[in-house]
Amino acid sequence: MEQERIQRVLQAMKERGLSQMIVCDPESVDYLTGVYVAPFERLFALYLQADGGHVFFLNKLFTVPETPIEKVWFTDTDDAIGLVAQRVRAGEPLGIDKEWTARFLLPLMERLPGTPCVLASDCVDGVRARKDEQEQELMRQSSRINDQVMERAAAYIREGMTERQVADYLTAQYSDLGCEGLSFSPIVSFGANAADPHHMPDDTVLRAGDCIVLDIGGKKAGYCSDMTRTYFCKTASEQHRAIHDLVRKANEAAEALVRPGVPLCDLDKAARDVISQAGYGEYFTHRLGHFIGRTDHEQGDVSSANTALAQEGMVFSIEPGVYLPGEMGVRVEDLVLVTKDGCQVLNQVEKRWQLIG
Amino acid sequence: MEQERIQRVLQAMKERGLSQMIVCDPESVDYLTGVYVAPFERLFALYLQADGGHVFFLNKLFTVPETPIEKVWFTDTDDAIGLVAQRVRAGEPLGIDKEWTARFLLPLMERLPGTPCVLASDCVDGVRARKDEQEQELMRQSSRINDQVMERAAAYIREGMTERQVADYLTAQYSDLGCEGLSFSPIVSFGANAADPHHMPDDTVLRAGDCIVLDIGGKKAGYCSDMTRTYFCKTASEQHRAIHDLVRKANEAAEALVRPGVPLCDLDKAARDVISQAGYGEYFTHRLGHFIGRTDHEQGDVSSANTALAQEGMVFSIEPGVYLPGEMGVRVEDLVLVTKDGCQVLNQVEKRWQLIG
Repeated sequence: MEQERIQRVLQAMKERGLSQMIVCDPESVDYLTGVYVAPFERLFALYLQADGGHVFFLNKLFTVPETPIEKVWFTDTDDAIGLVAQRVRAGEPLGIDKEWTARFLLPLMERLPGTPCVLASDCVDGVRARKDEQEQELMRQSSRINDQVMERAAAYIREGMTERQVADYLTAQYSDLGCEGLSFSPIVSFGANAADPHHMPDDTVLRAGDCIVLDIGGKKAGYCSDMTRTYFCKTASEQHRAIHDLVRKANEAAEALVRPGVPLCDLDKAARDVISQAGYGEYFTHRLGHFIGRTDHEQGDVSSANTALAQEGMVFSIEPGVYLPGEMGVRVEDLVLVTKDGCQVLNQVEKRWQLIG
Repeated sequence: MEQERIQRVLQAMKERGLSQMIVCDPESVDYLTGVYVAPFERLFALYLQADGGHVFFLNKLFTVPETPIEKVWFTDTDDAIGLVAQRVRAGEPLGIDKEWTARFLLPLMERLPGTPCVLASDCVDGVRARKDEQEQELMRQSSRINDQVMERAAAYIREGMTERQVADYLTAQYSDLGCEGLSFSPIVSFGANAADPHHMPDDTVLRAGDCIVLDIGGKKAGYCSDMTRTYFCKTASEQHRAIHDLVRKANEAAEALVRPGVPLCDLDKAARDVISQAGYGEYFTHRLGHFIGRTDHEQGDVSSANTALAQEGMVFSIEPGVYLPGEMGVRVEDLVLVTKDGCQVLNQVEKRWQLIG
């Protein structure tokens, strides 16, 4: 039970006029209670109430540690939604986790026709976004491991290897370095494949002159890393080197601005301006960054649409890119932690272009 | 475009009185259109209409192949939900995919106050549940690989290894045998850990006398395998051997009944009766099985609550278990494919108890 975190959530609910809320994101529930469950398609919910009468809804298949929170147990054949509907205070607005699926939400709304369901994840996500000191240290540790994996990968890759082979190698390194898993499936993209920012590793073979995008992250002690470096195999054209320099400068321009109080959209603009002024604006096709912590993508992004201000303890990515369809792509990504008067860049691997392989 | 599959979905919608539906499960969309996208937190939807005017809603970050379906593109900063709301026929019931999250569903409902949103996944899931011939062959292939991995694991495991070490070995075998990934994170449980059916591999060390539960599956050409075998390390008590025999007999009793027309709940009962009659009923804490195909858990289960009838082409698991808290667990699982007049058991690995290690 993380009483302080729960209190911060209840305070946020109060500011939204909510006296009750359903939290279902397993990471949010773990963050608030220390109870982690992987529910797959089964119902799993923490019902929070302003007066402190919180309730866990749990399938008997779930194994949970002792906790002072009341538990309502059900089996695969029980009417689990009915049990939730019985406990919700009908007629009062009910906050809903953004991750709750229609599978549960629509039947619950049917049972509670006079109870407005309100998207209220921000009440939890806003608290999760500001990492406390213990979390900050875990984020640093996780990124230190990511640095090591990236350096191993750069030393390992050779012309003639396939993307899948490199991805398998990367996966093994996280395990070797004590991670419990990956933040996300590693992105390893050679040459023209790199023009798709989300390309998945396949049997493409590395050739001299190819760019090599490695977008990778591991999970250590519950916290995620995420970094991208772009290398070239043995040789690189002048244009490709220049694009790499440009993307790196965009990354550095944004990182230089990070401090409490800066609007997140200003960071996106700083990076985008560098790339646009060089004529590549239309090839930078995504937002600058995303929040990260217990999952790779947490609520909150660094985009032109987000006018929220950076706050101490936030951790997000700074990852500009340029993608030339059919030809190549470059992305340079670090995680940054907002400090009292600036930021700490959590990744220390060289980001200038290098020839490897 | 899989016209025949889409026609079957439209027919199911018609029977439900639906002229429009949103499909968002990436596997369902791929199944119907051949377009696969991993959207993460971004909106991704296929809007199906009875008159054939289907629409894709796509973030510009997604890379999709050519398709005859109309596309509506948006960026990270556009009002994607607004674009969907504009296209939906207001006032007419709108079918919703069970996987759609509150993040999208609640804002859409707010924009369309007079449009009833109806949980309608069954229209797609019912079609997906009956595998066509090509899919049946892929399911067979995937399980053949799973048999090989299980046999490798049984030969590899030694006293003194950790669960994590075995899980890493298993993961590497799927890659080695040409799988594109795992169906799910492998379950490797030694001794008392096996009492939790969903225990995740940790640093527990294998000791003589421990049970060893391996619940594993890989994904090959888009289709999943899933099998469980329980071994013992070097020696096993008489009671543990007897429990293993009992669980295997429960598995075999259910498999013997599988044919078109049998109520799925009867299969659960057949297995449960075997275990209950031996006095272990309270230790068989979950349903007998689940449907499987493009994902490990597809809609549909084999439980006392499901009175639906087995149909030719369905594939599901038969996985009874007995779990003794603090002591051990045994589970024996195969996949079965319902054939014209019976079933094909897709796993051929010996299921009697064996001493390994």
